[in-house]
Amino acid sequence: MSEHAAVLFANDAFYVAFATRDAEAMDALWARQGPVTCIHPGWAALSGRREVMLSWQAILANPDAPKIQCRSAVAHVHGDSAYVVCYEVLEQGFLVATNVFVREDGAWRMVHHQAGATPPPPEDDEPAPEAAPN
Amino acid sequence: MSEHAAVLFANDAFYVAFATRDAEAMDALWARQGPVTCIHPGWAALSGRREVMLSWQAILANPDAPKIQCRSAVAHVHGDSAYVVCYEVLEQGFLVATNVFVREDGAWRMVHHQAGATPPPPEDDEPAPEAAPN
Repeated sequence: MSEHAAVLFANDAFYVAFATRDAEAMDALWARQGPVTCIHPGWAALSGRREVMLSWQAILANPDAPKIQCRSAVAHVHGDSAYVVCYEVLEQGFLVATNVFVREDGAWRMVHHQAGATPPPPEDDEPAPEAAPN
Repeated sequence: MSEHAAVLFANDAFYVAFATRDAEAMDALWARQGPVTCIHPGWAALSGRREVMLSWQAILANPDAPKIQCRSAVAHVHGDSAYVVCYEVLEQGFLVATNVFVREDGAWRMVHHQAGATPPPPEDDEPAPEAAPN
């Protein structure tokens, strides 16, 4: 698997954990060996694994938490670090996200997430069979 | 200068270029050797140097563009890549930003910026004389 594909796979795992309300999987995919940070839409920045994980536990346990799908993810790999820009499709509208990953013990683990409001992405941003150019 | 300090210096250069409407400095601090991306608050994701630079030229040339100050920046360095989380203080309110940098020709250059709305940061987030733990 190319590094781009591996990063996109890690990004997908984040959205699967989010969509299925799987707090254990969400915990497993965040980095352990360094500080992590997270900016939920409209929130202040959260810093540190405990604070970030408590936020996810609260979000995933909330029955009113939005259904979410990831769309048009593009990965940018820089050595042992990478970031993904993607859209998040919710029932209420669209968000656009930055997800930062680092390679830790051979796996791409998340160190940072920021999502914020965005207009609907262009229709031609739908995932195509061809890999996105990067 | 430590790598953390060098990344924070590059982050400061971004906000100085923004605050002083210096399109040339803004252009110079973005990476040249790879794709760049940018998510302005409430915008769709912009991709590619030309698209990102056109957006900054329009923003910096706009006399109604907001006055901006950076506050409480914390850098996270991972080899030749780094990201900064910081608040942006505007006349209209506060934004929180993710700024991603890579080391290119020995300099830290920006490859990605996302900013979104946030509540006022806590007063104790004011920059302190001590370095932020990281």
